[in-house]
Amino acid sequence: MRVCGVDCGTETTGYGIVEWDDRLPNPRLVSIGSGGICPPRKTLLPERLLLIYAELTSLFERCRPDIVAVEEVFYSVNARSAIRLGHVRGVALLAAANAGLPVAEYAPLTIKSTVTGYGLAAKHQVQFMVARLLSLPVAPEPADAADALAIAICHIHHAQTLALQEAGAI
Amino acid sequence: MRVCGVDCGTETTGYGIVEWDDRLPNPRLVSIGSGGICPPRKTLLPERLLLIYAELTSLFERCRPDIVAVEEVFYSVNARSAIRLGHVRGVALLAAANAGLPVAEYAPLTIKSTVTGYGLAAKHQVQFMVARLLSLPVAPEPADAADALAIAICHIHHAQTLALQEAGAI
Repeated sequence: MRVCGVDCGTETTGYGIVEWDDRLPNPRLVSIGSGGICPPRKTLLPERLLLIYAELTSLFERCRPDIVAVEEVFYSVNARSAIRLGHVRGVALLAAANAGLPVAEYAPLTIKSTVTGYGLAAKHQVQFMVARLLSLPVAPEPADAADALAIAICHIHHAQTLALQEAGAI
Repeated sequence: MRVCGVDCGTETTGYGIVEWDDRLPNPRLVSIGSGGICPPRKTLLPERLLLIYAELTSLFERCRPDIVAVEEVFYSVNARSAIRLGHVRGVALLAAANAGLPVAEYAPLTIKSTVTGYGLAAKHQVQFMVARLLSLPVAPEPADAADALAIAICHIHHAQTLALQEAGAI
């Protein structure tokens, strides 16, 4: 299973592709790649969205994930930030739909507690645990890329738990 | 000048194309077409966005406007509605950017006061005045289409005023 996590943001949109190949003799989580899409600061919003859409579309074509995982919308932010975030999130969901990919959503608390064991973990704790779980020599940068990898890991964990439950193993 | 007004909404996204042709002996505002994009109710969000994006892209290709006009984001709504609206607005701005069209934004108060003379006009008053200004026999339906036409009229009015100011006529 190959999952592309996307961490939508108005300044930087992080992405991270994680694979779980259970055909291997010793299956483990593997990072296929991660990074951040950062449109230049003074770019107008429509052009920023166009750049994010183009980058995600190209990423989905190159990496061919089975599913895209995103953070559930975070309602405690103010309306102004919420609308700005909504613009980017809309474009990310559109890129997934246009590539024919299903979308899974997880609450920020669920993602952090899956990866670090603590729902209110700090950014550097998420980065540290993502590096450990993916056997990376250093923490992924930018932090948005680590967040995106965390979302992907969270989906794989939940999909595995669901599969075990359905098989009657737990 | 041909303007496509887009009234972004989570249920219905209205659009309306208005032309001002000052080469005519008796120039006036002409409605080229209007309508609403209403994805089926139970459609998942990514597919709703895909449908809205595809319809707007096709509309821009067919009607070839010079510019797209949208409502400025409305900050008094709550964060949940704001994010939902942001998704659709992001996709509309993306469709404009992808078609190489510039985007103009107007505050709801500006649009209503341009069209009806009163910034807090009710929906039916906007519909009535849009029909009068465009010499339509009946008020445009759905109301979102009338709102979109109002946004387009607002842009034409402001562009004309600006042109007159630049020419030193006012």
